[in-house]
Amino acid sequence: MYLPRTAVIGAGISGLTASKMLRDYGVPYTCFESSDRIGGNWAFGNPNGHSSAYRSLHIDTSKHQLSFRDYPMPADYPDFPHHTQIKQYLDGYCATFELAEMIEFGNGVTSARRRRDGGWDIDDERGETRQFDLLVVANGHHWDPRLPDFPGEFAGETLHAHHYIDPQTPLDFRDRRILVVGLGNSAADIAVELSSKALGNRLTLSTRSSAWIVPKYIAGRPADKYYRTSPHLPLSWQRKLAQAIQPITAGRPERYGLPKPNHKLFEAHPTQSVELPLRLGSGDVIPKPNITRLDGHTVHFEDGSADDFDVIVYATGYNITFPFFDPGFIGAPDNRIDLFKRMFLPGIEDVVFAGFAQATPTLFPFVECQARLIGAYAVGRYRLPDTAEMRRVIVADQQRYTGHMLDRPRHTQQVDYFLYEHDMRVRELPAGARRAAAAGAPRWARVAEQAPA
Amino acid sequence: MYLPRTAVIGAGISGLTASKMLRDYGVPYTCFESSDRIGGNWAFGNPNGHSSAYRSLHIDTSKHQLSFRDYPMPADYPDFPHHTQIKQYLDGYCATFELAEMIEFGNGVTSARRRRDGGWDIDDERGETRQFDLLVVANGHHWDPRLPDFPGEFAGETLHAHHYIDPQTPLDFRDRRILVVGLGNSAADIAVELSSKALGNRLTLSTRSSAWIVPKYIAGRPADKYYRTSPHLPLSWQRKLAQAIQPITAGRPERYGLPKPNHKLFEAHPTQSVELPLRLGSGDVIPKPNITRLDGHTVHFEDGSADDFDVIVYATGYNITFPFFDPGFIGAPDNRIDLFKRMFLPGIEDVVFAGFAQATPTLFPFVECQARLIGAYAVGRYRLPDTAEMRRVIVADQQRYTGHMLDRPRHTQQVDYFLYEHDMRVRELPAGARRAAAAGAPRWARVAEQAPA
Repeated sequence: MYLPRTAVIGAGISGLTASKMLRDYGVPYTCFESSDRIGGNWAFGNPNGHSSAYRSLHIDTSKHQLSFRDYPMPADYPDFPHHTQIKQYLDGYCATFELAEMIEFGNGVTSARRRRDGGWDIDDERGETRQFDLLVVANGHHWDPRLPDFPGEFAGETLHAHHYIDPQTPLDFRDRRILVVGLGNSAADIAVELSSKALGNRLTLSTRSSAWIVPKYIAGRPADKYYRTSPHLPLSWQRKLAQAIQPITAGRPERYGLPKPNHKLFEAHPTQSVELPLRLGSGDVIPKPNITRLDGHTVHFEDGSADDFDVIVYATGYNITFPFFDPGFIGAPDNRIDLFKRMFLPGIEDVVFAGFAQATPTLFPFVECQARLIGAYAVGRYRLPDTAEMRRVIVADQQRYTGHMLDRPRHTQQVDYFLYEHDMRVRELPAGARRAAAAGAPRWARVAEQAPA
Repeated sequence: MYLPRTAVIGAGISGLTASKMLRDYGVPYTCFESSDRIGGNWAFGNPNGHSSAYRSLHIDTSKHQLSFRDYPMPADYPDFPHHTQIKQYLDGYCATFELAEMIEFGNGVTSARRRRDGGWDIDDERGETRQFDLLVVANGHHWDPRLPDFPGEFAGETLHAHHYIDPQTPLDFRDRRILVVGLGNSAADIAVELSSKALGNRLTLSTRSSAWIVPKYIAGRPADKYYRTSPHLPLSWQRKLAQAIQPITAGRPERYGLPKPNHKLFEAHPTQSVELPLRLGSGDVIPKPNITRLDGHTVHFEDGSADDFDVIVYATGYNITFPFFDPGFIGAPDNRIDLFKRMFLPGIEDVVFAGFAQATPTLFPFVECQARLIGAYAVGRYRLPDTAEMRRVIVADQQRYTGHMLDRPRHTQQVDYFLYEHDMRVRELPAGARRAAAAGAPRWARVAEQAPA
């Protein structure tokens, strides 16, 4: 059987797991990586500029949830590993499954153009143009800083969380009046780190949507050990239960002076921090609602208050960006890209997206689950439904995972891993296998048969 | 009626509350303070060297429990005020009750000698000797560092937590191998601060007795809001209940790799930290049992392991020290001093001790409660029972508050504030008032009557 020549763009967690499954199925592939190393976001100080890790970063998900199903985390790892340990783990994954030999390091993809009859012409950084049948897009979605657009001008220094390293880098964050904008995990971590009294800063945190803050530990066990959605109950009921329990574990954000969240618990990725509520309750972090206007060193807030600042740190998330596609062809304006199972664009069946989701509790086993389908798809054991059905499922899934949520770029990709994985394993993969058995060889095999020898 | 000329040693929280009550009762008193300011331990950088506060210190008790009953904390204070706010609060207390005018700043007591027939000769730092009828000892018990005595010699730098200020002061704590010894609140705070990945340290924490770690927040409210012992149930039952609930709120210390505590919850002052369990669970703080031996830069531990260190920080508590007493007369070897209601030495009725306890949840209203009795005692509205009864009560109270506890210097002073306050208000003060009505004028009044005019 003809197996598609496959290009994988990126050797982060999505590209590595996709590569591993392609290799398992014997699919010929090339992994393009612009950096000199694997790990993407988890390669601290990544020379390709695509890591957003700061020096103190520990993953917000415990190792029990984080582990790839194919490759357990080392038993001696702490509950919440440091980024250096995640990188070591990925290095081990890469070595164990012999993935490095198929990675072209220092050779990113500059352009990917779909040929009229299917398949891809790919320009790489070495200046070559190469042909592939199938394209796996795994270039990540946490590297292109998203900056909000407030009226007015700020006269002090500004920085996106992407570039934050530690209290000395890239700015000297001592004895400064600092405003952190955002309330995701990076915002919480940076606010906690920079509000240390030892640094002499005055730290204010402004949030638009607010967030539910959940602890990393409950009763001495990693909190996410208790997180396990069931496919046998409506997700809305399970969220209601979590909502009912939340006051017992962490309390309402309003208790700490934060705005009331504009969404319910687990409708958006919650912020995991035990330290931020304490810093708010100790007066070390001053909570503020959204910004209305910038004016020199003064920042005005929605509650009518204003204050002066030396530095603004925007921990306001990331754009989904595909620098190798013609934006008129494939793009994600406002981070919206409607993908079937967050993987397939209806109508273009020789490109697969990997890792473009905000999976709760974590992306690690999620991308591994997607990779399983990529492998099956490449060898023709899985076939997509027709485009009308794909569009119907996209809308139904979006409703299911993000039903109550406000329409924010950060939230369009929200997915519950446990439900997703169950759906893929029990429903979608078997259904796709039945379709494959009925329909015969996939498109690239047919194209290959027609091509001159 | 003759009112005793009273000397108060110290203008920290114990001396200030005692002074306030003496003033309320119109007792003539002088407050001796070696520093140029009030606040004692809460005057960060106190020139008299008696503050153990570090730059980032927030009080471990919420403002709701902390408030003096006579002087509420400002409503705009955060739940867990910073030491600068505690100092401001004490300044406000001092100003409101006009206490400064009776404080002799920069004039500590160098010697206090009891005269054969009662009353005191006091030498002050100005070189004067002055006579008083009643002495209130309020010089604090968190200023004289206690250092453990391990076999062997350590070749690196050592520091007691008393001298710790911040990660730059008094040592440069960056890129060092640091061992923090102890697991009280200072040990937890310093271990958390110095284990920040931004500093590049490798931090190990060694504990002998281990400790129960309780969160500062439960369900969005300061955890100590839930702490309220009842005088109507045996304390042992209430501890059993807390012990049963503890796994829900914080879990067992063994979960984080710490040794099993050698005592039950609330038998010793618990360590309040939400951050330390997280740092342990993130691998940033490495837990170790007690030290067995020092050998150059190597430290050996009870579990047979050993590791090398550059710095040891001893957060191992404080000695109770009375530098103005002849140690053969009054002392506290191993921090043991048997005091009736933690205030009176049986047989010496013209000296009162204030603040010599480890009160749960906090010392603030506790010293205020003691001060109420000091005022009543000075004016003869309260009289002590006979020395045999006092000795009986000392043993019974010790049994009640510290029943199960191992015999450690740190724990000899453990008292439950709510039970203590209830006992004082409902039982001891009325009983002492009845004794006073039956027995007539206190000793100093009788002595004064006999003295030549």
